[in-house]
Amino acid sequence: MTAAHAPTFIQSADNAFVKDLRRLAQGTTAYRRQGRVWVEGDHLCGAALARGRQPAVAVFSESFWPLAPAQYAQAAIKSIVLLDALWASISALESPAGMGFVLDWSEPAQLQPHAPTVVLDRLQDAGNVGSILRCAAAFGFTQIAAIKGTAALWSPKVLRAGMGAHFALQLVEGLEVQALLDALQAPLLVTSSHQGDLLHRAALPWPCAWVMGHEGQGVSPLLEQRASQHIRIAQPGGEESLNVAAAAAICLHASAAGCLGR
Amino acid sequence: MTAAHAPTFIQSADNAFVKDLRRLAQGTTAYRRQGRVWVEGDHLCGAALARGRQPAVAVFSESFWPLAPAQYAQAAIKSIVLLDALWASISALESPAGMGFVLDWSEPAQLQPHAPTVVLDRLQDAGNVGSILRCAAAFGFTQIAAIKGTAALWSPKVLRAGMGAHFALQLVEGLEVQALLDALQAPLLVTSSHQGDLLHRAALPWPCAWVMGHEGQGVSPLLEQRASQHIRIAQPGGEESLNVAAAAAICLHASAAGCLGR
Repeated sequence: MTAAHAPTFIQSADNAFVKDLRRLAQGTTAYRRQGRVWVEGDHLCGAALARGRQPAVAVFSESFWPLAPAQYAQAAIKSIVLLDALWASISALESPAGMGFVLDWSEPAQLQPHAPTVVLDRLQDAGNVGSILRCAAAFGFTQIAAIKGTAALWSPKVLRAGMGAHFALQLVEGLEVQALLDALQAPLLVTSSHQGDLLHRAALPWPCAWVMGHEGQGVSPLLEQRASQHIRIAQPGGEESLNVAAAAAICLHASAAGCLGR
Repeated sequence: MTAAHAPTFIQSADNAFVKDLRRLAQGTTAYRRQGRVWVEGDHLCGAALARGRQPAVAVFSESFWPLAPAQYAQAAIKSIVLLDALWASISALESPAGMGFVLDWSEPAQLQPHAPTVVLDRLQDAGNVGSILRCAAAFGFTQIAAIKGTAALWSPKVLRAGMGAHFALQLVEGLEVQALLDALQAPLLVTSSHQGDLLHRAALPWPCAWVMGHEGQGVSPLLEQRASQHIRIAQPGGEESLNVAAAAAICLHASAAGCLGR
């Protein structure tokens, strides 16, 4: 491969970069302290590049380095190669990919008041959050607004479950409910099991902000009160409650379908 | 509490029942060998009772036993109380619930040829499988047909993710593709990223059999060939692929909405 620059080899577990990287790869909120995120594996790195992100550092395992596509090292400001044993001590993947990017991260700008938005109201499960981010990106939503208490959006688990959707969205987290309500102008849509229009018959506004609530407790009372519309998902098979990521998929798709016209 | 019968106390980790129960609670396919399943926690046990299942054994931790609702012990043929330390060695839950049922399990009867069905084509992830079972039950599907290679449907992880949907469905697993095609008469619907009708505009048959494919490889070529309809999910935000459980939620809801009339 033709590298844009010679990589730095690191062999010591005591190296400061390695220690920081381990915290970043294994902690859920270390990205906030370090001001950078760790993005591991071909698919996520490719998604970051496709959206024009320039990696601060491209990191490779020693055995993957000779096989690595040139674009990865060329895209990064700096490349680092780690001994395989060091790499294994950092990777959180069951089948370590042998490469990853460190990307600069900073608190995003303020909420876009009129952007098509998904509000995550204290969602706990990283898999649910990642799945909802994928749906949001696929169905034309551009902003995620996470209420304080939601799983950290840039944590390694949410990044993996998001499969690259992070790079297609504006992500704002740590919001208080009142601050969200003050800033967001798009009409709030809240799912309900007992009131409101049936989703498949409802006329949905666009842009809008769908609120997805905590896995156990549902949507916060204040958000529920301030909803422009309550929406029910018809469940002819019975009143089993849906997983929140499944409900989100159905609602966000319905908004997209409404935009495209039936 | 008023128990229907006095429980048996078990204190020894070497007890044969305890050993078998540990295998059942921690193995993904032990239920097939033992001919019974382990259902842990209030929600799942309640769902089993609500669907008329009689537990072979109700099992309690020593500290939960005095607090246990009488209906659990009364419903079961037999009750067993385990020392808390033994219980902790069996439970796979992060917050052990203190109670569970052992239910008899046997291979289900044959496929119902005309039942509204979801075909799981070698799905790997227990969370995806469980989420799809919940959606299937909510949206009026009555049968799950799992192709050989799909995650074991009655494994503890799939049971937890299914949140009780198992007890509302006929579950057939270990099927070969050809045997499925020979037995199933309902029209096969397959999602596709590049051909077929857009879901939100399609007229969907009922009953039908939706095919959900392997997370990485998608639907088997033979099932793809034999589809009655190929269906696309519009993704105006870009060609991000959806998580299979999200795609299933959208498709199964669309079938239910079609039945109910727009």
